[in-house]
Amino acid sequence: MLVLGVIGDGECNATTAAVAEEVGREIARRGAVLVCGGLGGVMAAACRGARSAGGMTVGILPGPDRAAANSWVDIPVVTGLGEARNVLVVRTSQAVIAVGGQYGTLSEIAFALKLGVPVVGLDTWQLARRRRVLDLIVEARTPAEAVDKAFALIHS
Amino acid sequence: MLVLGVIGDGECNATTAAVAEEVGREIARRGAVLVCGGLGGVMAAACRGARSAGGMTVGILPGPDRAAANSWVDIPVVTGLGEARNVLVVRTSQAVIAVGGQYGTLSEIAFALKLGVPVVGLDTWQLARRRRVLDLIVEARTPAEAVDKAFALIHS
Amino acid sequence: MLVLGVIGDGECNATTAAVAEEVGREIARRGAVLVCGGLGGVMAAACRGARSAGGMTVGILPGPDRAAANSWVDIPVVTGLGEARNVLVVRTSQAVIAVGGQYGTLSEIAFALKLGVPVVGLDTWQLARRRRVLDLIVEARTPAEAVDKAFALIHS
Amino acid sequence: MLVLGVIGDGECNATTAAVAEEVGREIARRGAVLVCGGLGGVMAAACRGARSAGGMTVGILPGPDRAAANSWVDIPVVTGLGEARNVLVVRTSQAVIAVGGQYGTLSEIAFALKLGVPVVGLDTWQLARRRRVLDLIVEARTPAEAVDKAFALIHS
Repeated sequence: MLVLGVIGDGECNATTAAVAEEVGREIARRGAVLVCGGLGGVMAAACRGARSAGGMTVGILPGPDRAAANSWVDIPVVTGLGEARNVLVVRTSQAVIAVGGQYGTLSEIAFALKLGVPVVGLDTWQLARRRRVLDLIVEARTPAEAVDKAFALIHS
Repeated sequence: MLVLGVIGDGECNATTAAVAEEVGREIARRGAVLVCGGLGGVMAAACRGARSAGGMTVGILPGPDRAAANSWVDIPVVTGLGEARNVLVVRTSQAVIAVGGQYGTLSEIAFALKLGVPVVGLDTWQLARRRRVLDLIVEARTPAEAVDKAFALIHS
Repeated sequence: MLVLGVIGDGECNATTAAVAEEVGREIARRGAVLVCGGLGGVMAAACRGARSAGGMTVGILPGPDRAAANSWVDIPVVTGLGEARNVLVVRTSQAVIAVGGQYGTLSEIAFALKLGVPVVGLDTWQLARRRRVLDLIVEARTPAEAVDKAFALIHS
Repeated sequence: MLVLGVIGDGECNATTAAVAEEVGREIARRGAVLVCGGLGGVMAAACRGARSAGGMTVGILPGPDRAAANSWVDIPVVTGLGEARNVLVVRTSQAVIAVGGQYGTLSEIAFALKLGVPVVGLDTWQLARRRRVLDLIVEARTPAEAVDKAFALIHS
């Protein structure tokens, strides 16, 4: 069973949520398990999408309370580790798709790059050195393209 | 969906494995998800039992490599946290059943008692103070009794 | 520089606090650094003792806030990991001394036994199997005896 | 006692090492404790610098073995948490100075931004969105300027 991660902000606008939901749907359509941080925003939208396509969802929660999981998490993994759980989301995923995102998402992108977990971005962070933007994150323009690229990177 | 943990040693004899397998089967028969540390011994036997009864299994691995999961883990959660992952097995479970066990299992029993997660023991550690054995862990004599007691404690 | 851990409850009575304070003092007198969980009760008393003898203290805190450290911690290590920080207290110590203690302390004793870190107890938990108390933890009757035994175990 | 973190790659060239060493020296000269990840490269150079100015150093190690600490670490904090220890380096610091750095350093910058810990960069990562470089990290051109800015940010 393939496991794909979706990373993104715990609060997001409707446009970003629609993208995340479609990413979740595409992951489930391909028969993969969706892993995320289990909370709201992008994470909730992605889980909702995966569930609507009959998929399974795992939420790796930062806090000590399973009740913090969004309503579309099938398996809440309760860590109590705070932000350190971000590493677990990345390690548990065979590839991750970043949808927008703030600093927590940036930490997950960093861990993915560090650990060699493929990362595909949809309107997310870019990295630069000496004011030159570097192409370190594979970018996609649509949810389907992002999920296709993530699957291709796992198999490459 | 209820989530039950099974804790025990990564190496065990055939008798203990048979007990753990039956515990896994009983958990799956009652429709709950089985969580464990994902490795061998009691963990593998419990997962094998749960799978044989059509259940789902989650393995929260200490190392950085998903390939360390036993063959009956459906969802490997890869932590890279070493022994600190023991806390996650306990937090993720709504009750835990200890089957035999060495010092790692003792740490999980301690966290369960600390965090208020019900713990049922099958031939496992007992605790004492000033050479008096204290009845802090609910004990059971058969796998079915252990799983019954664990479910009862969740609902109480 | 040797590093000794003191583990025990975050709340304790005056008798236990006096014992912990003397343990801290003895550690500092021998020129070792004292490590603990950084909070109150036994931890605060041990730090106070070490400081009074000119020693240095490290507090490995479970929460996200350095202000939670007791007043006698020189170096607060802020983890935000919750109970998982118990493993770090043990790993960072070359030997640990348990003074009384509740379930958190029990988890630290279990990790110490698991990881081969010597553990000396002053009126702390004992372990049993099938109602037989086992002699798995080195016991001491006085703070000085506990610290002597801990140093001897590091060097053996 | 103020605690400043130095983050950077575990391997680095002589120029970067010289910068890191001077950063360590400047931190110690101001009477602050230096915290880092405890390994080689930038971490070792910074510890060496701090020690040469009479300062104290704490190394928060990713692995299970205190022997992995560089020779200039006074207090090795042994975590066994792998990359998750990066969060602890950030949380333990009242400000962090990034010297160059690869993906691990990027994760620490991300956590610092997330957690509100001031971060000053010396020839380190920059962040961008839609190919526009954003000024999210305070930059400095010399070690002394970096340490001055870090202290100013703590006090602001």
